[in-house]
Amino acid sequence: MAKTLIFGHKNPDTDTICSALAYADLKVKLGEDAEPARLGEVNKETQFALDYFKAEAPQLIEKVEDGAEVILVDHNEFQQSVENINQAKITEVIDHHRVSNFETKEPLFFRAEPVGCTATILNKMYKEKNVEVSKEIAGLLLSAIISDSLLLKSPTCTEEDVNAARELAEIAGVNLEEYGLDMLQAGADLSDKSALELVTMDAKEFTMGNAKVEIAQVNAVDTETVYAIQPELEKEINKIVDDKDLDLFLFVVTDILNNDSEVLALGEGKGKVESAYHVTLSDKNRALLKGVVSRKKQIVTVLTEEFSK
Amino acid sequence: MAKTLIFGHKNPDTDTICSALAYADLKVKLGEDAEPARLGEVNKETQFALDYFKAEAPQLIEKVEDGAEVILVDHNEFQQSVENINQAKITEVIDHHRVSNFETKEPLFFRAEPVGCTATILNKMYKEKNVEVSKEIAGLLLSAIISDSLLLKSPTCTEEDVNAARELAEIAGVNLEEYGLDMLQAGADLSDKSALELVTMDAKEFTMGNAKVEIAQVNAVDTETVYAIQPELEKEINKIVDDKDLDLFLFVVTDILNNDSEVLALGEGKGKVESAYHVTLSDKNRALLKGVVSRKKQIVTVLTEEFSK
Repeated sequence: MAKTLIFGHKNPDTDTICSALAYADLKVKLGEDAEPARLGEVNKETQFALDYFKAEAPQLIEKVEDGAEVILVDHNEFQQSVENINQAKITEVIDHHRVSNFETKEPLFFRAEPVGCTATILNKMYKEKNVEVSKEIAGLLLSAIISDSLLLKSPTCTEEDVNAARELAEIAGVNLEEYGLDMLQAGADLSDKSALELVTMDAKEFTMGNAKVEIAQVNAVDTETVYAIQPELEKEINKIVDDKDLDLFLFVVTDILNNDSEVLALGEGKGKVESAYHVTLSDKNRALLKGVVSRKKQIVTVLTEEFSK
Repeated sequence: MAKTLIFGHKNPDTDTICSALAYADLKVKLGEDAEPARLGEVNKETQFALDYFKAEAPQLIEKVEDGAEVILVDHNEFQQSVENINQAKITEVIDHHRVSNFETKEPLFFRAEPVGCTATILNKMYKEKNVEVSKEIAGLLLSAIISDSLLLKSPTCTEEDVNAARELAEIAGVNLEEYGLDMLQAGADLSDKSALELVTMDAKEFTMGNAKVEIAQVNAVDTETVYAIQPELEKEINKIVDDKDLDLFLFVVTDILNNDSEVLALGEGKGKVESAYHVTLSDKNRALLKGVVSRKKQIVTVLTEEFSK
C-alpha cells in the first residue's frame, strides 16, 4: 500500500512546508508509513529555514490519485488543496484555520485549534505522543511560528504560540529575535521577483458569501519598493480576475518592521474593501490598513462578513 | 454575556444528550460558563439512562440567536443542527462523524476522531484536563457508548470505545452487559409509538451527491412487530418525501438481538439501495441487510458512494 502523503496548501508558506515535514517525522517515529509533500515552490523565507536547519524540501506533487490516503496540514479548504482532493481519502487534518469547503464521506481525525500556527499544535502532539522533538524539527517548527506570527506580533498569535516558540528556540539552539528577523528579512527580499510572481507566490482563494475572492500577501521591508512596479502588478492581477472570474483580488504588502499593510484592490467588489475598513482607495486603488498583518484574522473574516451582508 | 450552549443533533439519541451533559459538566468544572441543551424529545433509551443515573435532561431549545456562542457535540452537518446555526458563532465541535455541510467564518476548536462515540472522546478529554469523572457522568458516558455501539457490537466500535466502556462501567458501578441490555431494551420498546413517531424519532437528513436522503433508524427486539403497521409507516414516509422533496427515505429497523436490519425504502432513488447492497427490494419495498447495524459506517458511506457514481 502506498504511503500516506502529508501536505499543506498551494503556494506553500513556511508553516505549510515545515508542518508537513514535522508531522511526517512524528508519524514515522510512531511507526506509521507517511511522507511529506508540497504543492508548489519553496519561498525564500522557507528556504532560509530549511538551509539553516539542514533540512530538505519535501517532494513536489501536482495531484493525488483517486482513493489515495492523505493528511492535510495547515489548510482544509479544497480550493487551496491539491488537484483531485475530493477523490482522495482524507484520514486526518491538522489545522488552525476556519473550516470551509471541506467534506469527507467517512469519519476522520480532524484537529483544528484557534492558535496562530499549525506548528504549535504539532509541538503539542509530539508531547502527547511522548516523542522527543529533535533539534532540526524544533528549528522547523519554530520557523513556522515566527513566519505565521510575524515574530510573535500578529493578532493571531496566542500565548500557546509564544510559549511553544520560546521552548523550541531553546531546543533549536537559536536566539528567537535574531533568527526570526533574519528569516523574515530573507523572505522579504523580493528583488528578483517578477510582477506575476509577486501576485501569485502566496495567493489563496476564498468563497465569501456568493463572491470569489483571491488574496495574495507578501512581506516587505519597504512597501514602496514593491509598488514601484504597480502598473505591471495591475496587469497581472487583472488577468487573474478575468481568468478566474473573481469579484475581488486583494494584494497585501505587509511591512514587517512597522506591522501595517499597504493593499491594492482590483475587481468589481473592491468597494467592499472600503466599506469593511472604512478607508477610501486612492486613485491608485490602494489603501494603508493600519495594524493589519494577518490575512486570516484581519482580512478574511472582515471581508467574509462584508460580502455576506 | 450569555452562557455558551452545548448541544447535539436534532432527534437526539443517547450519545447526543449525554455528551452535551458531560461536556457542560467538564466546562463548568474548568471554570467556563456553559450549559447543555437539546434539540428535541428525549427518547426512552436515553430516559432510562437519565433515570438510572439520576440526571436531568438538558433544556429544550428551538433556535439560537445571531452571534450566540455555541458548541456542537456529536454532529457537525448544519442540516442536523439547530435552526439559525449558520448565524451562530461555533467555538467548538467535538464529534465522531464525517465532516460535511459545515463551515465557520473564523478558526475554531474542532476535534473529530473516527471512534464509535462522542462520549469516548469526552472521556479522554476529562483525563487530558485532569478532571475526575463523577459516578453520574461515568454512567451517562457509558450509556452513550452502549447506545452508539449497540453494546459494543457495531462495526463502528473501536478498541478505544471498548476500553472506555469497561473503565466507565467500573466508575459507574454497573455490570456492562446487564445494564447495557436493559437500556437497549428500554429503547426498543416501541409499543406506544405512532407511525409518524417511528419514522421521525431518529431521522437524519443527508446530502449525497446531488441527492437529498433521509434515514431513520429504530432499534427493536422483533422487527416484524414494527412492520405490523407498514401501510401507516409508508403513508407518513411518503408525506415526508413529498414535503422535503427527498430522493430517498430509508427506514431502518435494527434487530438488537441478531444485529441485522430490515429496511423499508421509498422515493425515486430506492433503486440505489438495491445496487448498493446487491439486494432486491420485496414487493413491500423491504430488504434484510445482514449484519448492518450502523447508519454511519454501513449505510451513509455506502449510499453516498452509490449516489455519487
